[in-house]
Amino acid sequence: MNAVDLIVAKRDGGELSDQEINWFISGVTAGRIPPEQAAALLMAIVWRGLSDRELATWTAAMIHSGRRLDLSALDRPTVDKHSTGGVGDKVSLVLCPLVAACGAAVPQLSGRGLGHSGGTLDKMEAITGWRAEVGFDRFLEQLGQVGAVIAAAGDDLAPADRVLYALRDVTGTVASVPLIASSIMSKKIAEGTAGLVLDVKFGSGAFLPDPADGEILARTMVGLGQAHGVETVALLTAMDQPLGWAAGNALEVAEAVDALAGGGPADLVEVTLALAREMVAMAHLDADPATVLASGRAMDTWRAMVGAQGGDPDAPLPVAREVDQWRAPADGYVNRIDALAVGTAAWRLGAGRARKEDPVSPVAGVRLLRTAGDHVTAGTPLAELHTDNPDLLPAAHEALADALTLTPTPPPSQPLIRTRIAEG
Amino acid sequence: MNAVDLIVAKRDGGELSDQEINWFISGVTAGRIPPEQAAALLMAIVWRGLSDRELATWTAAMIHSGRRLDLSALDRPTVDKHSTGGVGDKVSLVLCPLVAACGAAVPQLSGRGLGHSGGTLDKMEAITGWRAEVGFDRFLEQLGQVGAVIAAAGDDLAPADRVLYALRDVTGTVASVPLIASSIMSKKIAEGTAGLVLDVKFGSGAFLPDPADGEILARTMVGLGQAHGVETVALLTAMDQPLGWAAGNALEVAEAVDALAGGGPADLVEVTLALAREMVAMAHLDADPATVLASGRAMDTWRAMVGAQGGDPDAPLPVAREVDQWRAPADGYVNRIDALAVGTAAWRLGAGRARKEDPVSPVAGVRLLRTAGDHVTAGTPLAELHTDNPDLLPAAHEALADALTLTPTPPPSQPLIRTRIAEG
Repeated sequence: MNAVDLIVAKRDGGELSDQEINWFISGVTAGRIPPEQAAALLMAIVWRGLSDRELATWTAAMIHSGRRLDLSALDRPTVDKHSTGGVGDKVSLVLCPLVAACGAAVPQLSGRGLGHSGGTLDKMEAITGWRAEVGFDRFLEQLGQVGAVIAAAGDDLAPADRVLYALRDVTGTVASVPLIASSIMSKKIAEGTAGLVLDVKFGSGAFLPDPADGEILARTMVGLGQAHGVETVALLTAMDQPLGWAAGNALEVAEAVDALAGGGPADLVEVTLALAREMVAMAHLDADPATVLASGRAMDTWRAMVGAQGGDPDAPLPVAREVDQWRAPADGYVNRIDALAVGTAAWRLGAGRARKEDPVSPVAGVRLLRTAGDHVTAGTPLAELHTDNPDLLPAAHEALADALTLTPTPPPSQPLIRTRIAEG
Repeated sequence: MNAVDLIVAKRDGGELSDQEINWFISGVTAGRIPPEQAAALLMAIVWRGLSDRELATWTAAMIHSGRRLDLSALDRPTVDKHSTGGVGDKVSLVLCPLVAACGAAVPQLSGRGLGHSGGTLDKMEAITGWRAEVGFDRFLEQLGQVGAVIAAAGDDLAPADRVLYALRDVTGTVASVPLIASSIMSKKIAEGTAGLVLDVKFGSGAFLPDPADGEILARTMVGLGQAHGVETVALLTAMDQPLGWAAGNALEVAEAVDALAGGGPADLVEVTLALAREMVAMAHLDADPATVLASGRAMDTWRAMVGAQGGDPDAPLPVAREVDQWRAPADGYVNRIDALAVGTAAWRLGAGRARKEDPVSPVAGVRLLRTAGDHVTAGTPLAELHTDNPDLLPAAHEALADALTLTPTPPPSQPLIRTRIAEG
């Protein structure tokens, strides 16, 4: 088989055979297919797409490039959640212990963030002592005892995705529904969960801003999950404004802990409970997530989960050396504070990375003080900018230059959860 | 500047700035831009194309990646020819000495063949002792004394094209009008010729079979030549059937020598004279190519040209150890013998290469015995298959399986030269 033949077939709008797809995925994973040929095929896929059959084969080949975990020894039902990524999205930190406290096992193998969208592992690593790396035996043990693990996916889980994602990241081939869907679902299916709830974001802070694209992505992923025996449901949720008040690693952990303590921002709690209800129903558990959250049992599970991975839930979170203010330039009602701008500002302050090798700052980020619907006057502080490096402040202010929309009247309230998608 | 930004802009249908294009071409030539990023951009260009402004800048950057030869010291007018490549296309071997014998200097810097389409240098190398490599001083000297040089382009001529072509060849990004046009024209403009006639092929044996595509390519190249001060005209010529009777290196040299001696196939002579008339007119010379060909002076120039590069024009050409027959399966008139099939058969016999490192056989090839319009009966030999390696014969017969179209009546004759294009 010859890579050029595959590239030319896809370039000209043809379909690749199952054999060709399997040959390509195994070849690219093993390094037999040079990166320039893989990159050309990926761009041809961005152009021409993949048919349903091609995508099913492509995803299966990515799963089979590594190990598929077997969690059947657990005596709890397994159910996990994945978000396509947003600004201030600390939902997993509340949701995983909450659903575990409802009786499920939540095996969340996660990744690090890139660009304006933070990664769950980066957030957890703001906790003193907490370790993302957990071997399979300890993973199973913690799932059985605590019910929740948030950990780094091992190198043996869908290794094809690691190779392809690294290549897509540097070749402008990230923004493709079939490539995004196969990347996410190959890892989640390999992880061994029996049920999966997807939080598919749309709006300015999402990777696919248009809700119609989000819906196509959601249906594609639901179809792939079901085809591999993983019960999958997706909620389409708004990401035009940051979720909650904080964007940045330690700032978000603090907010998640507030929510576990029964407080926290209303939008964060709303999305978390909606996802939790889906997961609890999927696991056939007789528990009400709102009641469990109010009871403090989710907080107990959080403390056990953090502690099991070396973290100290009582240690104070690190704090930035510099806190600057972002102020309203005029009077009016806050109509919107743009998610992408806030995410970019947090990134510029040091909370995110431009390349996967970059370190992230645990303390950097943006904490909003005002949100949509609030009335402000010129000079009112809108947000705190946290960083250890004051040289980064001008770039953050610049990122926020057009972030604020002021109007003479309060904005109508927008539903946070747009649609529920249960069919591919 | 960041390669991903360029790739994403082109992927989304945008235009690259002059600065971005210059940065990319110099970066890819120097190896600063990794091949996977270059490949992704090339595929995005196959998809989205280049605007006139982008293409002009792209081509200029390729020319400026190396040296532009200065042939102004010659006391003859310079004019060259380029063919987009066909099966049995040995026109240059007759045309270069013919136009030189008319009084011009023909500075033909050429390449080697890839795939089913033979390269002029590969053909010339079938001549005992002939060397493709000629230094610039010898090149100028031979142009002044003999009037014609066919030689390998030096490494300092449009080096960007060498890098890009090698990459396009393995990434399915050859078939793009702007990429083909910039590749051809950057080399021809750098070569220093004042005038250029393009033989743009269409039909099954051409890289762009559709004549409409050929016309777009021709106009694009004529425009680029004129923009760089090279007077450029294109003829669009048919390549549905091989040109002449022979496809294969030594076999084609023999046929070219027949044409120089006043014989040779009618189609080869027709195309050669049409191109020669364009070149002679462009050089403002008062000579009739048909008269010069008949006079034997073109043959004298051929002998001088071969001899000046170490070749022995009197040495017998090498001959294949095995000659097999391809026979008609039924009775009828030969309607067509497909050019691509014959080119592929010659390639399978050893005349061409699959990768640029492969050696070619000087003796291998196909010599047709019958052509369109001939009546044949079942068993009539249609062609000889020449090779030193009889193991290659089955693959050649397979390539020819559908090459023959037989009809109960003779086919109408088709014009060989479709259009003349003198404007971009």
